[in-house]
Amino acid sequence: MSPARLVLATGNRGKIREIRDLLGDLDIEVLTCDDLEGWPDLVERGETFEENATSKAMELSHWAGMAALADDSGLEVEALGGEPGVRSARYAGAQGDDAANIARLLREMEGVPAARRGARFVCVLVLASPRGESIEIRETCEGSVITAPRGELGFGYDPVFVPAAMDRTMAEMDLEEKNAISHRGKALRHLRAILEAGEPGWLLDA
Amino acid sequence: MSPARLVLATGNRGKIREIRDLLGDLDIEVLTCDDLEGWPDLVERGETFEENATSKAMELSHWAGMAALADDSGLEVEALGGEPGVRSARYAGAQGDDAANIARLLREMEGVPAARRGARFVCVLVLASPRGESIEIRETCEGSVITAPRGELGFGYDPVFVPAAMDRTMAEMDLEEKNAISHRGKALRHLRAILEAGEPGWLLDA
Repeated sequence: MSPARLVLATGNRGKIREIRDLLGDLDIEVLTCDDLEGWPDLVERGETFEENATSKAMELSHWAGMAALADDSGLEVEALGGEPGVRSARYAGAQGDDAANIARLLREMEGVPAARRGARFVCVLVLASPRGESIEIRETCEGSVITAPRGELGFGYDPVFVPAAMDRTMAEMDLEEKNAISHRGKALRHLRAILEAGEPGWLLDA
Repeated sequence: MSPARLVLATGNRGKIREIRDLLGDLDIEVLTCDDLEGWPDLVERGETFEENATSKAMELSHWAGMAALADDSGLEVEALGGEPGVRSARYAGAQGDDAANIARLLREMEGVPAARRGARFVCVLVLASPRGESIEIRETCEGSVITAPRGELGFGYDPVFVPAAMDRTMAEMDLEEKNAISHRGKALRHLRAILEAGEPGWLLDA
């Protein structure tokens, strides 16, 4: 039996680092798209995190002939009716321009008082097999959006997000501290618990 | 510290039996709505299993002041474009009339050849806290719909669903055998693994 392996359906360095930090020591080989030649562009067209994560994981898994793990995540801001949500990574136009996305978010929230700056980070993980099997996990991290960025660590909206009952932004926390409370950290720990329990069979028996 | 507890956001006896079978021996008190007085009617209005499970868990958790676990599940039939899906339990009109639902399903699929009778059971579990925290797990069970019911066990569409690589319907399997391969059994084992790993903190520290 060859060791179980999976490929990460993301090119985001920040996500890859966090996933490897939490799954890296399991007896599962974790590849990235860089390890595969000619991998397909994974496009997000869905209206929900679940749709996006599922289509990315399914598409890559089918193409690569092995299990694939996708993460779709974003920030839902109460005062903006849940925006930027699934559009978090391209809120300012270009995909993954963190500084521009943060600038737009702060602009949209100008004048919103502290009591109404509640927000939540959402992470949906989907682990899919080439045969169409999948499992899905959603986690959230509640907090609020401050008025000016603070901190150099993390990625995305981390510099303007302060988790509930904390006083520092996610960009002021090292990886271990962030993973302990973040949406992605919690979802990955759930996935880890599932893998350690010997599930799903289709991954470990492959 | 009082022992952790949760209430099941379902009145379906079949679901309650399967959930208790898989979570009953954990150090968590599992209540049902019958244990609470004046519990609210949980209405399913969503277009996805995720929406329905989330709203049921959130609503009950908020009302009961303790964690709530909801299950939304159903049968997606390929030849019917994914129907009955979220409408599985009320496909024939009245909520939970298994015989009528099966009769309608078989009528809709009259003349569909064996090779095109593929279907999947989907289960989405949502565990929510009164403070709005939640985790979500989705699992599936692939199989096909036969042309006449077989078996007396289980509930719902079990008598007409044969899991992939099996020759018996889900209604011809005892609880242990069904839970080993079913959508709900797999999702509950994932949840169990998460709970046994001491997560989510908000349930176990409550």
